[in-house]
Parts: sequence; C-alpha cells; structure tokens
Amino acid sequence: MNIKTASNDFPISDLLRDRWSPRAFNGLPVENEKLRRIFEAARWSPSASNLQPWRFIIGEKGSVTYDKIFSTLVEFNKLWAVTAPILMLSMTKKTNNKEEHNNSADYDLGQAVANLTFQATAEGLFVHQMGGFNVAEAVKLFNIPEHFSVATAIAVGYLGNPEVLHENLKKMEISKRERIKANDFVFCGTFGQNTELFNL
Amino acid sequence: MNIKTASNDFPISDLLRDRWSPRAFNGLPVENEKLRRIFEAARWSPSASNLQPWRFIIGEKGSVTYDKIFSTLVEFNKLWAVTAPILMLSMTKKTNNKEEHNNSADYDLGQAVANLTFQATAEGLFVHQMGGFNVAEAVKLFNIPEHFSVATAIAVGYLGNPEVLHENLKKMEISKRERIKANDFVFCGTFGQNTELFNL
Repeated sequence: MNIKTASNDFPISDLLRDRWSPRAFNGLPVENEKLRRIFEAARWSPSASNLQPWRFIIGEKGSVTYDKIFSTLVEFNKLWAVTAPILMLSMTKKTNNKEEHNNSADYDLGQAVANLTFQATAEGLFVHQMGGFNVAEAVKLFNIPEHFSVATAIAVGYLGNPEVLHENLKKMEISKRERIKANDFVFCGTFGQNTELFNL
Repeated sequence: MNIKTASNDFPISDLLRDRWSPRAFNGLPVENEKLRRIFEAARWSPSASNLQPWRFIIGEKGSVTYDKIFSTLVEFNKLWAVTAPILMLSMTKKTNNKEEHNNSADYDLGQAVANLTFQATAEGLFVHQMGGFNVAEAVKLFNIPEHFSVATAIAVGYLGNPEVLHENLKKMEISKRERIKANDFVFCGTFGQNTELFNL
C-alpha cells in the first residue's frame, strides 16, 4: 500500500495495485543486480513470431549517456526527472527478418516495458515513462539506425519525498489515480455493448 | 516451474518466469471472478496522458461472440484455439481527446495486455496472443468504429495436455523457449554498444 494505491473494483496483484509513476525519486542509485533483473524480465516477454523487437539505451546518473537522454527531455520533464538515478530510452526494430514492417513492434515493446516495470515493482523500484522528449534529437545523439524507432524515455529509481517537487508537481504527486470503468472498455456481442461480467 | 519455465540468466518473478503461450488448454471454463480480475489488472496499466486506449471484446466458449472471434482466425490458429474456453479481441482507440492520432496507443495496449497476463498467471491461467486472424472480418463482425484498430486475438484458459494437439503443434508445445541475450538489446553510450552490466 502507498499513497497512490489503486482504488480497484476487484482484487489484483499487489505489484499491479501499488505501481504508479512518481516524479519524486530519493536520489539513491539502483543496484546493478536489480537493473540486470528488470532487463531479464523484459527479455522473457512474449512477441509476435518471437521477434523480440525491443531495444533499450540505459544511462546512470553522472554518465554521458544519462546527460544525453536528459538533454532530449521537454522542460516539464526536466523539472522532475533530474532526481531519477536511471534514465532509459526504449525503441523498436520496425522490421521483421525479411525487412518487412513489423505491425506488432510497438505493442510488443509495450509488453516488454510492462514486464520490466512488474519486476522493478517487485524490487521496490518505481518507473515513470515519458512521451515528452525530442525523438529526432535522441536519434541523432545515439546514432539510432533508420529501421529502429524511439518510443519512450523512462525514469527508474526509488520513491522520493513529494516535498522536493515544484508546487504544481506536488499536487499531481498526491492526487488520486483515475481510470475509466471496466464496462467502458470490455465489450461482448458487438463493439460498445456491455458484458454481464461487471454487473454484480 | 513448468515444462516451459524460462532458462533465465538472472532471477525474475515466478509470474514472469513461468508464463508462456500454450496451444493446449484443458477445456475447463474460466471463472467470472478471474475474468473480472484480469480486466481490472489491465485497467490499472499506465498510458500516455492516461488516455487508456485499450478495448476488449470477450467471448466465452459456446457464445455467439466466441464463434465470431473463432471464425476470424487463420486455419493454423483454429487447429488449436478450439480448446480455449475464452477468446478475446484487443483493440486501440487510435485518437486522443482532440481527435489527433495517439502515437502511443499500440504500445499502451501492449502494456495493458501484459498486465492482464500477469494477473492471469497469478490466477493459474495461461494466455496465448495471436496476430494470425482476419482483421477486416473482425471489424465487420463487431461493427468496430473507424477510429479504433484491432490488434490481437487472445486465447485464455487452463493448461491442457500437449497430447491432444496435432503432431507438429505438439513439438512446438514442448520445445525450449528461446530469447536473444540482454547484451543484444540493452545498450549504453550509443546504439548497439554493450553496457558493462551483463559482463559478470
């Protein structure tokens, strides 16, 4: 349980219920064995035709790689990501082994990042994914080949005190997590039609 | 532990290690409370700007919805999916609240399906995702609106005996799970450059 524990309608694994995306990290570095394990979790994710289209670039605070990833972030994300001990970029190989477009690449990267996040939560870590960064700049800084596509920037670390954040960010850090109801996204019969599953 | 337990290089959560995508299900129905919990797990997945672009259509064996989903599968998948007690379609809302394209929709759906899969594994269930189905037919059969995109078909159920499968499928069912090494997808400094993390 933590301040952002999901207000779930049905019981789910603690590792899913207590996961959220903080902006305040406590500055402690992440142990190498934990980093190895979160990537190992990503590694065993499923993918279409087992193509494993996920790739990551990782930077630890104080390194050139970290500074390069940080430099691509939009100003809003720079405000808080400065406290993260680890920054990553996630990307996909856009093609299959025949150089054809892999339609499932983004979907499968999402699954791998979810696996990584699940293991991170099991390790006491928190993960915050970002879309707010300059993709073209990231491609240039890391010489990312043409048939790869950068998807997200990801901060990883231990939870910090919201008090260190800017006033506006502090409010977001302690606000309730909101989701649409299961009836709004699970259908039966035809698109948009409710199932009887959630009518208790 | 099961016959397909990952040959992992570093320890990971049992729920990730023992997850795999079987083709033989044992025919037992899935309890409604477990279905509610796996969708609840998907519900608390993260998404870009909290857009929650995931949608599902679920059919239980014996229902019209199940038969419609089954009818869209390619012949190879029909061979084995016939034993699955639950079939689903996963899809994304392609646009954000301003009717602009949501670049993260597929990635976020992948995360939601991964969350659903963790919870399913925690419930003793197995999940097998498929790309092999007729998307245009699915769109027609379920009146899926234009700004939604069907991504995968998904079988869910309890593990069955590989002996029930066709000879060729049986071999796949008991073959070792293969993955590229972490050094092949985690980089540092520049794209393709190894980190020191995995040099033990």
